Amino acid sequence: MVEVSVISVTHDKFTGLPMIILGNTDENFAIPIWIGDYEAELLENCLLGAVPPRPFPYDLICNVIASLDGEVEKVVINQFDKGIYFASIFIKRKDGEIVKIDARPSDSINIAVRTGAPIFVTKEIIEKACLIKLKEENSPYSPQQKRELEKLLKYIFDEEE
Amino acid sequence: MVEVSVISVTHDKFTGLPMIILGNTDENFAIPIWIGDYEAELLENCLLGAVPPRPFPYDLICNVIASLDGEVEKVVINQFDKGIYFASIFIKRKDGEIVKIDARPSDSINIAVRTGAPIFVTKEIIEKACLIKLKEENSPYSPQQKRELEKLLKYIFDEEE
Repeated sequence: MVEVSVISVTHDKFTGLPMIILGNTDENFAIPIWIGDYEAELLENCLLGAVPPRPFPYDLICNVIASLDGEVEKVVINQFDKGIYFASIFIKRKDGEIVKIDARPSDSINIAVRTGAPIFVTKEIIEKACLIKLKEENSPYSPQQKRELEKLLKYIFDEEE
Repeated sequence: MVEVSVISVTHDKFTGLPMIILGNTDENFAIPIWIGDYEAELLENCLLGAVPPRPFPYDLICNVIASLDGEVEKVVINQFDKGIYFASIFIKRKDGEIVKIDARPSDSINIAVRTGAPIFVTKEIIEKACLIKLKEENSPYSPQQKRELEKLLKYIFDEEE
């Protein structure tokens, strides 16, 4: 497993859909995950430090976990099938047992950023999922793949520069 | 406190906004609570018995509570201020202690319908909030209020008849 961070919450400029870019600059990769508008908005608000006047669902989940003496250990994006990502949230109970709860990546990441828990992706995800090389030297991709990746890189980093 | 049930998830025909109608036919009242599109969609899906392919936030909260040996005792809509409702979710921990967690009514009701927990409104809410008399004999409302209520009743029950 490789630890990743949220590089960006942005919009796919081709489809207009919101997406999270997860990445690890040392390991030289990034993974785009398309998510819902609502999940993207709540993630963005949290990353910007906005405090909602009333708890929204992810704040509520974090409050529930804390009230039941649980602690979010980590979040793992662990499956990629037919373009859909799956994830698990690992929560440490008061008795020390760690429970694994299936969740969508968008929900998992929203909880990770609110609790400070680390986010991991499995090697299988890195092999199977749509990847972007963050640095382009010695790229193993075909010219067609490189053109696609360049397009992806362009719209991801357009907003960053 | 008075126990209520979800009479309807519908749309306000004047504003187009989604709303929940909570009510108690024995006590002869109903309360409309305006909520978000996302929350209304997930509530409606649950009431229709739809099972999502992956857990959505409310399914996730219920799974988290169960994994941490909690049990939802009840949900209470307990405050109404400047047109906004507030609620609390009461969760029984494994050690028997009952914890109270602040939540929005839309989130609370979504969790109640998924866990089978009862929903209550306080007397204060019944006194302060926008109410609809389910039966109209001996109505304490002014003619103007009655006309407003008739409009509300009409669009609520239009879909039911």
